Amino acid sequence: MTVELISVGTEILLGNIVNTNANYLSKKCAELGLELYFQISVGDNESRLCEVLKSSLLRSDIVILTGGLGPTQDDMTKEAVAKVFQRELIMDELSRERIQAYFEFQHKTENSYSALQKITENNWKQALKIEDSIVVENNNGTAPGYIIEGKYPIEEDAQAEAPLKRVILLPGPPSEMIPMFEESIFPYLQKLQQKVLVSSMVKICGIGESKAETDILDLIHAQKNPTIAPYAKNGEVHFRVTAYANSKQEAEKLLTPVIDELYRRFANHIYTTKETESLEEVVVKQLIKQKLTVACAESCTGGMLTARLVNVPGVSQVLKTSLITYANEAKEKYLGVDPETLEKYGAVSEQTAREMAIGAAVNTKSDTALAITGIAGPEGGTKEKPVGLVYISCYVLGKTFVKEYHMKGSREKIRERSVIYALDLLRNCLNQI
Amino acid sequence: MTVELISVGTEILLGNIVNTNANYLSKKCAELGLELYFQISVGDNESRLCEVLKSSLLRSDIVILTGGLGPTQDDMTKEAVAKVFQRELIMDELSRERIQAYFEFQHKTENSYSALQKITENNWKQALKIEDSIVVENNNGTAPGYIIEGKYPIEEDAQAEAPLKRVILLPGPPSEMIPMFEESIFPYLQKLQQKVLVSSMVKICGIGESKAETDILDLIHAQKNPTIAPYAKNGEVHFRVTAYANSKQEAEKLLTPVIDELYRRFANHIYTTKETESLEEVVVKQLIKQKLTVACAESCTGGMLTARLVNVPGVSQVLKTSLITYANEAKEKYLGVDPETLEKYGAVSEQTAREMAIGAAVNTKSDTALAITGIAGPEGGTKEKPVGLVYISCYVLGKTFVKEYHMKGSREKIRERSVIYALDLLRNCLNQI
Repeated sequence: MTVELISVGTEILLGNIVNTNANYLSKKCAELGLELYFQISVGDNESRLCEVLKSSLLRSDIVILTGGLGPTQDDMTKEAVAKVFQRELIMDELSRERIQAYFEFQHKTENSYSALQKITENNWKQALKIEDSIVVENNNGTAPGYIIEGKYPIEEDAQAEAPLKRVILLPGPPSEMIPMFEESIFPYLQKLQQKVLVSSMVKICGIGESKAETDILDLIHAQKNPTIAPYAKNGEVHFRVTAYANSKQEAEKLLTPVIDELYRRFANHIYTTKETESLEEVVVKQLIKQKLTVACAESCTGGMLTARLVNVPGVSQVLKTSLITYANEAKEKYLGVDPETLEKYGAVSEQTAREMAIGAAVNTKSDTALAITGIAGPEGGTKEKPVGLVYISCYVLGKTFVKEYHMKGSREKIRERSVIYALDLLRNCLNQI
Repeated sequence: MTVELISVGTEILLGNIVNTNANYLSKKCAELGLELYFQISVGDNESRLCEVLKSSLLRSDIVILTGGLGPTQDDMTKEAVAKVFQRELIMDELSRERIQAYFEFQHKTENSYSALQKITENNWKQALKIEDSIVVENNNGTAPGYIIEGKYPIEEDAQAEAPLKRVILLPGPPSEMIPMFEESIFPYLQKLQQKVLVSSMVKICGIGESKAETDILDLIHAQKNPTIAPYAKNGEVHFRVTAYANSKQEAEKLLTPVIDELYRRFANHIYTTKETESLEEVVVKQLIKQKLTVACAESCTGGMLTARLVNVPGVSQVLKTSLITYANEAKEKYLGVDPETLEKYGAVSEQTAREMAIGAAVNTKSDTALAITGIAGPEGGTKEKPVGLVYISCYVLGKTFVKEYHMKGSREKIRERSVIYALDLLRNCLNQI
């Protein structure tokens, strides 16, 4: 079964946003075993959208469109699809009620910001559905999604012989598109597929991408079923291992030896094999399991590490306080770092990192603590202490470890990577007690 | 003049890489004032590549292809373009010499990774050029780029009337493509362009997308030159205003009245008109200008607000400390929140938010402070205090403001939006002193 993606939005054509939707959907289609040969981006222009949709429908079984479902004049994806299938747009009462409820909720309090948002006439445009289409609920915004099943080409004489096509319309913002795809579209597409596809995401931290890939080059070359696909993240490498079979059990049986082999090669660098489990989740779960609390002392990351931990619902069991001590005075006052240490070794040093971690643990009465101090750039580097020099310290029940890192890249990248390395350091320390 | 992008590579269709090349080239084409209506991604497959190239050539003046110029069997962009224009591939002696020199240079050091790379037979494939094409030097790899100028369609009878088309072939790796584009292709395209394009990004905070757009529907309807395009972000709306003219001065003259009109309508909701300036940058600059320091007290956002501020290089002038007080004890210990306040009104309340902001300012001796306390979910909501209830407090030189918000969406979205509203609240408070 073939599938094609059409991303709608002038902001893509102007380069204002990177088309991450196409990337996400491509991965999902590969996971579903759908063959994807073309991706197209087109602006908010009805005639050009109709043009590409028609050629996509002629060559693919399924066409997935993202974007252009919003309330504004610019948004015309629904209109274009209706035109191509010669169907009407009709009011969908359920969508109408949902939009009303959404706005009423936003308006509950008078002095809320959102109270400024009135339901404007154009919001009702989002309650219009394409005749005979399936409306897909949006739990994260006002624009519903749609599934249209119909023969194409629609010309009367061709109708009898024309093959059945499926068009799926999804909202553009990833925060709405992704949950809608996972909740409703993935299961819908999965039902169309005969083969069962099972995949596992082997997530690795603490090994460079090239190194990780070189280490399994033989497996990648020999792959057929299961397949192994590497995904590099900042500071992490993920390998998706996917097997097709006639049943779930059979597919899982194919997966097991490959995953075992990856464990043999990467050992404790693997922090999870679960698709949705993040590094911070693994760390928080481990802390909960070991009944330990954690505190963070952050300098150059300025709260990013704690924010990552707070991503995990239920983190309140293990995290009570973090101290963002950007200035030297703050490191002294809140973490008890010795002014002499700062004077002698500097704020970015092994010694300061160590005292920060100990101070954070002692001051907040936590069992464990992480401290980060580094030079994220673009300014502030010297010959001895260049941009990218970062010290990460981990305190666990009286013992303190410090690691020195030399990172490359932008301020943002160095800070993100520091956060990942800190989480991984704590994970490794927890594994050893 | 119209331009179209074709990204070639099966790795894009499988979702293994995000197509950042298309994003980069789109921005550059917009800068050049070229009209870009379509972007296409296609795999390493000759017949499908020929198919899309033919339709692109029929509708656009310039087609830019990236990828598929490498030495492997998979790489066939050059072959496909030669086929479509019915031209031969011929050996380019200069390219041949350059490839040899490149490998000799790489092999100088024995223990370099690249020393593993031998000049294999297929490397010479990269020295073949399309007949009558312009070879573009690659200073960062072995695959040269190419420019083909020719009439299309090429059929003999159409030839006389066929318009002149330009096809540009660039290597896929951004580290080779971007420098090649900037050094050779940008100047080549600039020479073809008569018009100059100038744009401004009007960034608005604190008004919903629909509301903002409804407020300027008349301007959007009347738009021609300049054009106005809205972009919704979580908690923000950006309007790109773009004008074309014969000179930069003329284009700027066209922009001014539209931007003035936007200021008249949105007044102090506009925080910048600069493309690259973020909300946190505006806030930090304002603090620096007013010689004020800031501290944050974060609960549900868990460090995200401070991390946003720390995005801005030079923030150390105004930010010394932030306190992430996730637990009630931490709010008492580090912010001096009255245990009675917590008992009586709860951690998520106007009163607690107020005491958090005052406490953060007093404790860290800061001139201003922001405090956030809320229920980000998915758990922890009650009927009186549902998920999405957030209090944001701002202390400025002795005065304290508190705002109550009701937000929808995921834990992530609620937290992100809280950060933006907090920054905007501080910005507004600073504007009033």
